[in-house]
This record gives sequence, C-alpha cells and structure tokens, in this order.
Amino acid sequence: METVMSPALFHLHTADLHRKNVVVIDILRATSTICTALHNGAVEIATTATPAEALHFRSQGYLCAAERDGQTVEGFELGNSPQDYTSEKVKGKGIALTTTNGTRCLRMARGAAHVFAGSFLNIDALANFLVHDGRDVMLFCAGWKDRFNLEDTLFAGALAARLTGFESHCDATLAAITLWDKAAANPENFLGQASHAKRFQTLHRESDITVCMRMNSAPVLPLMKEGVLRCMPAGTTA
Amino acid sequence: METVMSPALFHLHTADLHRKNVVVIDILRATSTICTALHNGAVEIATTATPAEALHFRSQGYLCAAERDGQTVEGFELGNSPQDYTSEKVKGKGIALTTTNGTRCLRMARGAAHVFAGSFLNIDALANFLVHDGRDVMLFCAGWKDRFNLEDTLFAGALAARLTGFESHCDATLAAITLWDKAAANPENFLGQASHAKRFQTLHRESDITVCMRMNSAPVLPLMKEGVLRCMPAGTTA
Repeated sequence: METVMSPALFHLHTADLHRKNVVVIDILRATSTICTALHNGAVEIATTATPAEALHFRSQGYLCAAERDGQTVEGFELGNSPQDYTSEKVKGKGIALTTTNGTRCLRMARGAAHVFAGSFLNIDALANFLVHDGRDVMLFCAGWKDRFNLEDTLFAGALAARLTGFESHCDATLAAITLWDKAAANPENFLGQASHAKRFQTLHRESDITVCMRMNSAPVLPLMKEGVLRCMPAGTTA
Repeated sequence: METVMSPALFHLHTADLHRKNVVVIDILRATSTICTALHNGAVEIATTATPAEALHFRSQGYLCAAERDGQTVEGFELGNSPQDYTSEKVKGKGIALTTTNGTRCLRMARGAAHVFAGSFLNIDALANFLVHDGRDVMLFCAGWKDRFNLEDTLFAGALAARLTGFESHCDATLAAITLWDKAAANPENFLGQASHAKRFQTLHRESDITVCMRMNSAPVLPLMKEGVLRCMPAGTTA
C-alpha cells in the first residue's frame, strides 16, 4: 500500500502499476461528485481533458460538466458541485466531465488493475472491495494544481486505516493515517483550517464541504475504463 | 510560510524566492551532519553535485565526504554520519560534501534571501533568526529521492510551530504541525515507524537517529552562499 500525495509524485510510483488497485482522491470535489452522480443513477461519466472535448459529447445526448479553478465553465449545464447532480437531473444520463485536478489523475492512472474514484461517500464500499480483492493499493491524491492538500491526504488516511491487512513501507501512508487519527473525531472542523476550505468560503457553497464529508452516503464503486466511469456491479471482480 | 514536502514540488514555490528565507531539511542525515561539522569547528562545507567534484577539493586540503544511498562512497574520508564529524577530525578544516538528497536541495534553493541547513540540532537558533528577520519562510524537505519522508516533514512541523507570528495558507504546513503535535512527546519513537528509520537498521548505525534528534545540540546557523556553507555569526543579518 502506498500514498501519492500529489500528481507531481505519481511518476515515482508507476512500477508494477498493472498489479495495483488505484484509488483516485479529489474530495473537494471531483470524486465526491462522481460518486454522487453514479449513486443518483447516471449511467456513465466520460472524463475529458478539456472543456472543448467535453462539449463533443453533447450531440450524443450527454450532460456536459466542466469546472476550472473551482468555477463552472460558461456554457456548461453542470459544474463540480455534488449538490447539482440530483437524480432528477442525472438519472439514466451520460455525463461528460472535466475538472481541474481529479479527472486528470483518473486518466493518469490508466494501466492499473482497477482505477476507482474514492471519496468519503463510498469509503466502506471501496475498503470492502480492496480487502476482498487483495491486490496492492495505491491511494492517489489529486491535490490542488500539483500541491499537497489536506482533505485528500486525510481521506487517504481514513481509507488506509481500514486496510489493516495491507503491508506498507510508505511514509506518506503513515503520515496520512496519523492525520486521520487526529481528525477523525471531527473531520469537517479539522478541514476548516485547510486552504481549499477557505477557497470554498469565497468560491463555492460552503455546504459542499458538509456534503463531501458524509460517510457512505453514495456507496458505489466508480470504476474507470478507457476514460469512462461506470458503477462496478456488486460482487464482480471486473 | 510554506512547506515543500519534496524536491519534486519545489518548482511550485519559486515565485518571489529572493524574498524568502529557505530552510533545507534533511534530518537523516545531511543537514544534521552539516550542523555537527560546523559546530565542531569546521571552517566551511563546500557542497558538490557529484563525488568526483568533491574529490577536486582534496588538493586544496579539504576533507572529502560523499554519501550515496546511505553509504560512504569508496575512497572518501567521511560519509554522512554526524558521529564521524568530531572536533578532532574537522576543527579548522574545510569539507567538500555530496549526499543523495540534502546537498542537492541546498543548491536548488539558490536565489533565496538566505538558505540555511536546518535540523533538530539547531532548531531554536534557526527559529530565533527567522522570527527576528521576519521575511517569509520556506521549509524545504529533502525527502528521499523525491519521495515524501516522515522525519523531514516532522521537523518542518516542529520549526513551523515555533514561528507563531508567520502567516500560512499552506496545507503542507498544517499537516506538518499536526504531525509534530502528535510526535512531540516522543519523536524518536514516532520515527521508529518511518521507512528511513527501517533503512537505518540495515544500512547505518541506529544511534545516528538518536544523535539526529538531539534538540539544540549544535546551535549554529549554517548559511549557504555560492555553494558553500559557513556559520552565520550571531547577531548578523548576512
């Protein structure tokens, strides 16, 4: 088990990638949004590198979602707030999504045995799958424009603490577990100090943070294949 | 104030570098060794990129020190254990030093207002200077071959906790302070779990860890200028 604290460190961890299960983590908000959308009945989420590429999906009936620097890009139906992805809007739909950090990391991890989107919303579903599957695990934090961020590493710690049978020689995992240990009693309060939380107070609805910390509120397994996220059916091993 | 957890993230923090005081941190062992050598009377430490370059200094009467992957390079008088740098050996001498991680970071930080080598051995001397000087501070962790490591970030937290007047919008600093808060009662025990500590059990003298955790045992200010570290005299502002 290993924790990658920033996409800028990912290249140090690519040995034997095909043998690993990778969990991509972008708590505020891409991976929380992906869990919410699939839980609310979206059929699939196609990730794209750019907003322009996302718009190509519109003619195929997809909802188009794009966020840059925390804001919905002009001309898009959806941004990156999980609260926008209600079942009224997304049930039965395909979504084309591009975000500042999270979707990029999902694409970087291609080649792994499985690539999942992870968030507090599906933490136990993920932990159950990873323990049952038994492959080595990489916890891949999206961060903010290559910088370390608190919420992603905190989630890595929360998930790592649930993967008790896994061997780890990775200081980043130790640090993440220690941080989670400190924050577990009141993670939302702990995150109140974080840079991203402060950014939210100006850019977004603060309530997004509350929504993104709701444990097991969207217990799906968003599996990435060829750039597209779909729910892995319960009981499968892909 | 900001914390850089790995040299691979340094490029994100170079804006206004000339206005910052940078503390380079390689607890196990380069910056602990540098503090020890200067405290024990070495006149200067010339850092070099390669062992071959360090050997060029021999004809000028320098002691030559080189470490790669934790081991003393063959043909060198000194490696990277602070316990080798006794006053008997180093007093009045110049030393040419190259190490796997620390000396590289000292060279990367050129262009900053001041570049210091920081360790538990000189933590309060550094904190006093930084508070008195008042410039913005970068805590630059050398890590291990670009990977995050526990001991360098732990020290960053210990130093950051002493810099109470400084503004920080940096999640890495928050994480470092939280880790230090958890470890402060028994840092050596906390580090016993770290990857580098485990590497030490096979490669080095374990007692190096004890020596490198001795707070304020070498209260010098190792200032880097043009590739050479010398003690900053007390009371100067360089």
